[in-house]
Amino acid sequence: SKTYTIASIPGDGIGVEITDAAVQVLNKLSSSLSTFSFSFHTFDWSSKQYLARGWYMPPDGLQQLKKFDAIYFGAVGWPSVPDHISLWSLILPIRKALNQYVNVRPTRILRGTESPLSNCARGDLDWVIVRENSEGEYSGQGGTSHDNTPHAIATEVSIFTRVGIERIMRFAFETARSRPRKKLTMVTKSNAQRHGMVLWDAVFHKAAKEYPDIEIDKMLVDAMTVRMVLHPKSLDTIVATNLHADILSDLAAALSGSIGIAPSSNLDPTRENPSMFEPIHGSAPDIAGKGIANPVGAFWSAAEMVRWLGEESAADGLMQALENVTLSSVPLHRLQRRLRLRSLYHLGLPFLLPL
Amino acid sequence: SKTYTIASIPGDGIGVEITDAAVQVLNKLSSSLSTFSFSFHTFDWSSKQYLARGWYMPPDGLQQLKKFDAIYFGAVGWPSVPDHISLWSLILPIRKALNQYVNVRPTRILRGTESPLSNCARGDLDWVIVRENSEGEYSGQGGTSHDNTPHAIATEVSIFTRVGIERIMRFAFETARSRPRKKLTMVTKSNAQRHGMVLWDAVFHKAAKEYPDIEIDKMLVDAMTVRMVLHPKSLDTIVATNLHADILSDLAAALSGSIGIAPSSNLDPTRENPSMFEPIHGSAPDIAGKGIANPVGAFWSAAEMVRWLGEESAADGLMQALENVTLSSVPLHRLQRRLRLRSLYHLGLPFLLPL
Ligand SMILES: CC(C)[C@H](C(=O)O)[C@@H](O)C(=O)O
Ligand SMILES: CC(C)[C@H](C(=O)O)[C@@H](O)C(=O)O
Repeated sequence: SKTYTIASIPGDGIGVEITDAAVQVLNKLSSSLSTFSFSFHTFDWSSKQYLARGWYMPPDGLQQLKKFDAIYFGAVGWPSVPDHISLWSLILPIRKALNQYVNVRPTRILRGTESPLSNCARGDLDWVIVRENSEGEYSGQGGTSHDNTPHAIATEVSIFTRVGIERIMRFAFETARSRPRKKLTMVTKSNAQRHGMVLWDAVFHKAAKEYPDIEIDKMLVDAMTVRMVLHPKSLDTIVATNLHADILSDLAAALSGSIGIAPSSNLDPTRENPSMFEPIHGSAPDIAGKGIANPVGAFWSAAEMVRWLGEESAADGLMQALENVTLSSVPLHRLQRRLRLRSLYHLGLPFLLPL
Repeated sequence: SKTYTIASIPGDGIGVEITDAAVQVLNKLSSSLSTFSFSFHTFDWSSKQYLARGWYMPPDGLQQLKKFDAIYFGAVGWPSVPDHISLWSLILPIRKALNQYVNVRPTRILRGTESPLSNCARGDLDWVIVRENSEGEYSGQGGTSHDNTPHAIATEVSIFTRVGIERIMRFAFETARSRPRKKLTMVTKSNAQRHGMVLWDAVFHKAAKEYPDIEIDKMLVDAMTVRMVLHPKSLDTIVATNLHADILSDLAAALSGSIGIAPSSNLDPTRENPSMFEPIHGSAPDIAGKGIANPVGAFWSAAEMVRWLGEESAADGLMQALENVTLSSVPLHRLQRRLRLRSLYHLGLPFLLPL
């Protein structure tokens, strides 16, 4: 039986609790099935350690990660470290160095949960957001001149390359093709941002010619939020830039009930590097350590990891167990993140047993 | 009695119909009150004209506009002209050249209308979004190298200056101070964008010291969408960059019922240049010329113009008339833009008479 090696990075705040719960669920899953197992290695790369020793990852941190089959990530960010330092020391370098150029963010209304929209039944919101994860607004380029003077000026430089856009479009079209509705909506802001966004449009239309079976349309990012709220059923697969998809995927999670539910997969589709799986929520310092964080997004991310490792039916089983749990719980959107972690975890176990 | 000179730019699509209706309503308003009047001058700067003669504004277009007390704008954009050409030929140069560095976007649930959110009553959503309107992601800087080759690369450069951030913060704090709740929420993405957004944060915290009576908080733009959907009541005045506020204000309009309702004011607070008032919706080619566009955003924008000109009680009267109309109409969020323009206009007249 195969053993998958997983680098686990719990990180900060509720990242620690939900990673702990996800590891238990994954171990339970593999022992129920006994066709594969996991070997976890935990890396204590966190803001707490940064404050104590001055670094998140050691100099060979990225090299160490490369040896694993996959990476499971909790959350990073803590009030006493400026966010741009914690993120650029941990999560963003991993995404970039391991060529995880795709970030997949599915959203749907899980059984037993509710949308805050009054006219949105369970099947009406079923989206996959394909996020460009390697360039664009997250290039990190730019700088500050005349700092600490009245005429300080700072720039943020977004980089868009044809290679970068082509590969994300290909992934998005293939995702759309794998789904029943075969529909792809592309998002830009090419009316106001007339360089990179115009290139993005052009590459999209060229790629579309290779996928004549996919129905396409194009939205501006501002108007897209209106469509998500008022016409959720009209959308299926969505492709957008790093920043636009970051914003739209949080909105999607809210419209499906809670940010605590939503998973994300940072993928290197070439499979030369391990991919990384993480809930889209943050470290939630306000509720950290209380055992009340909502672990659904963490469990769903774990299922996506299992799927990426090739264990399709185990992934399906885990998702089914998860929806049995959400179905039998009180409506999630009211409690949001405050759902009892332990009770949900214990509730979850019996459902995993029949697997 | 004073006469206000107004430059009217109907533009494209439904911009023409709603501007026509707004001009009639404004004339009716002034003749009912007879303490001031309007003198309109219409500029046919449109995509139709561009296609016929090759330009939107004449070379001295911006100079011509400077002579007016205010500008009333319909909408710009038409399928046969790339959006980045139409917008960078008309609306964006006006905002920039006339120093309209503030864009104010109020949102609330008008009487008789409904939010698509099931847990959001009329008073629960009452926001003013203060949008930086002169720099940031709309600087227009950047370019493309190696165009039409496989290694094409394009950049978008966002510019943030201390001067630009300070003046928008001042306006935002004053706006918050003018409202009962005295609360300002500042939005950035300073965890991922570590140059301009970090400067934005720093200037905000410095400005906050001068406004100790204002309660402040800080949100990341992605998490802000979640808060708008799940906790609308927790927000009041909001300040954000050009792009972030563009996205959030469309979302706000959707959450209040329809993009067709929402107004916007492009202001030069120094009053050295005329300010410009426009609904936030676009030219809606699909319904243009059918007389079915929703004119509420146009009328509300007209009321904001009247207020900016100093005619407070006339503005209040117009808003009251408008809400009498929405109250007596069928729920707007169902019909959205498809509300009959003429019937609403005619319905509106009787309500204006008692002024
Ligand atoms: C933590 C932060 C850098 C991150 C992002 O913006 O990508 C988060 O918001 C996400 O969506 O994964
Ligand atoms: C038309 C477009 C340039 C404009 C913008 O992005 O500013 C519009 O979306 C708006 O919100 O006024």
